[in-house]
Amino acid sequence: MNDDELPFSEQALRYHAEPRPGKTATALTKPVVTQHDLSLAYTPGVAVPVRAIAGDPQLAYRYTNKGNLVAVISNGTAVLGLGNVGALAGKPVMEGKAVLFKYFADVDVVDIEVDAESPKAFIDTVRRIAPSFGGINLEDIAAPDCFDIEQALKEQLDIPVFHDDQHGTAIIIAAGLLNALELTGRTLKEARIVCLGAGSAGIASMRLLHELGADKRHITLVDRKGVVHAGRRNINAHKREFARRTGLRTLEEALAGADVFIGVSGPNLVSPGMLQGMADNPIVFALSNPDPEITPANAHAARSDLIMATGRSDYPNQVNNVLGFPFIFRGALDVQASAINTEMVIAAVKALAQLAHEPVPEEVLQAYGLDQLVFGRDYIIPKPFDPRLREFVAGAVARAAQESGVARVRDT
Amino acid sequence: MNDDELPFSEQALRYHAEPRPGKTATALTKPVVTQHDLSLAYTPGVAVPVRAIAGDPQLAYRYTNKGNLVAVISNGTAVLGLGNVGALAGKPVMEGKAVLFKYFADVDVVDIEVDAESPKAFIDTVRRIAPSFGGINLEDIAAPDCFDIEQALKEQLDIPVFHDDQHGTAIIIAAGLLNALELTGRTLKEARIVCLGAGSAGIASMRLLHELGADKRHITLVDRKGVVHAGRRNINAHKREFARRTGLRTLEEALAGADVFIGVSGPNLVSPGMLQGMADNPIVFALSNPDPEITPANAHAARSDLIMATGRSDYPNQVNNVLGFPFIFRGALDVQASAINTEMVIAAVKALAQLAHEPVPEEVLQAYGLDQLVFGRDYIIPKPFDPRLREFVAGAVARAAQESGVARVRDT
Repeated sequence: MNDDELPFSEQALRYHAEPRPGKTATALTKPVVTQHDLSLAYTPGVAVPVRAIAGDPQLAYRYTNKGNLVAVISNGTAVLGLGNVGALAGKPVMEGKAVLFKYFADVDVVDIEVDAESPKAFIDTVRRIAPSFGGINLEDIAAPDCFDIEQALKEQLDIPVFHDDQHGTAIIIAAGLLNALELTGRTLKEARIVCLGAGSAGIASMRLLHELGADKRHITLVDRKGVVHAGRRNINAHKREFARRTGLRTLEEALAGADVFIGVSGPNLVSPGMLQGMADNPIVFALSNPDPEITPANAHAARSDLIMATGRSDYPNQVNNVLGFPFIFRGALDVQASAINTEMVIAAVKALAQLAHEPVPEEVLQAYGLDQLVFGRDYIIPKPFDPRLREFVAGAVARAAQESGVARVRDT
Repeated sequence: MNDDELPFSEQALRYHAEPRPGKTATALTKPVVTQHDLSLAYTPGVAVPVRAIAGDPQLAYRYTNKGNLVAVISNGTAVLGLGNVGALAGKPVMEGKAVLFKYFADVDVVDIEVDAESPKAFIDTVRRIAPSFGGINLEDIAAPDCFDIEQALKEQLDIPVFHDDQHGTAIIIAAGLLNALELTGRTLKEARIVCLGAGSAGIASMRLLHELGADKRHITLVDRKGVVHAGRRNINAHKREFARRTGLRTLEEALAGADVFIGVSGPNLVSPGMLQGMADNPIVFALSNPDPEITPANAHAARSDLIMATGRSDYPNQVNNVLGFPFIFRGALDVQASAINTEMVIAAVKALAQLAHEPVPEEVLQAYGLDQLVFGRDYIIPKPFDPRLREFVAGAVARAAQESGVARVRDT
């Protein structure tokens, strides 16, 4: 029986198990043929770079793999849509992330699953192992701990720390939204935005949109209990940032007259009727995966003047983090950045938004079996297999690092 | 200028820096060509192995790289002969260890440099990141902390934990010594042994020799302050194990009439006169590297009836850890062992000792430019480039794991 004929879940298991378990391995980048090679790679030759780095820690970027190495680190508390599966069970996802980093941007990756008893234990652990790496990609850590963990590590470390579930998602959403607003003749400043989902992706996306010009008075955050309003009790400090004085209580009330819906929540939470209450040319990002907050079929049936994005590859306008993190780290590593700051994040947003305006090369059309792909309602976000992503996004991020003073390499 | 014409230290720096920094990278072991491949490697396909492992942690050996992955972990407190260079500066050594693991035994490796403020912090950190790995090779950790660290981690983890500076060294010493004793018609039980150096290698070697039959009343441990005797104060519990009641105080006194000298200390600490005081057919392992406790030239000039080993590749009988650790972990991983126990260590010793008795294949002679290599005074230890090491040592270790009940895989 051919693999293609197996059920998808069986194909997935077989892909992970055969011909050898897992998806990554160690590659050697230097010759190991003769005894002389070994005497350079290990004792006695290795003592020379050791002494050099002991004298100047920056030389680790010259004599070790640190400068191209990102640790993908998770505690397994919010893996995919599966919740807290534990550290070890998250490993296939972290190895998968390694595959994407390496394939798209030639970033080397170590996946580390941390079985920590508390956020402090997690932070301490990551801080102590950080010397080995050129950057840290935090992954699948539950909110609200993820905010404090990232903040603490950013303060304690001199390498980029980036929680992809927050900022990676926020960056692609922002890029797509800027283009959708442009197509419908609106600005971020005036857009009335409803965000369903107040976890890592929701909070980070609203923070980034605010940074880019969105008005907090026009942002309505909605969680499982309804609108996050100023009168709500027992909400964490991160939701509190977006708790505005309003009489709105339900998602339906919030969506009435809204320009933009961002869903980072769960399947089927939005009805056709809710979309019908939105403003003209509504922008609907229904990003719950694999089942969106409302299906494209139902959404288009409800509104013909819609711009829609999902998290799925089988519909137009896929919001896919792979458009961001490989190239953001590529850019950061290329200039030995000490952080990924807001300037670099915004540079990535603008580069992604701009790339969707550019004429699409033949090879990208072929990769997707399309005749054409032109900036418009069905193409507001670049495609993952677009080879220009690396140059566009990594280049913009590296320049932003240099201009904002966090790059150790100044001339590239 | 050709690399070969550069000074050795310059060659070592260039080897580490060019054409890209460091010695290891990430390799992908599964196809990543189509969108379908990515959908298996990452979302949505990756959810299937995640759920499987969440239900049965053992399945991490089937669906992730855990089962072939060893973490080489150091705190940088005892790097080579350089002492405490700090976590980061040890990285070239740990990457070098990765090269040896991969090259000799196809074991994948992550090098982790831990900047820990205390042994407890180090232990906590390693315990928390352990789920990712199939085994942990501790490296270059100063004594006596290394003993407590290894002990604690062995107790807390269900994967092999192996401090190579202790047991790796001890295994090769023991294998060579068994053969040297055989050649000189003696037994371990009756041999009078002097060990100079009471750090990780010295203590572990004497423990292993005792395990193999050496009589503690015939073992004299000597440190910087002289013989470790029962009257010494302020010595740690590990040295205390070998503190016997004796009137001997100096190395010279200890060596008078001794059968065996094991040096794991520093250069030029043994004089020709000291060797002249030893018993007939003395066995001298002068393992300080690169400069031994006494040079082979001086040793042979002092005693024509000597059997000598060093840590150097340019003399016969090199005690080189690379004969052990790659294959010991290979064997442990092959049967998903939960530990590397004494039975497995002893199996490795006996396999190495036995291999030196076997006829040497032509390809090994060619690799070393030798006409012959026959078991005897100048060939008591196998050569690192002997391709039979994997089968001999890994096979013996795997069988010992199965027979001693620490193997998860029973049929190989």
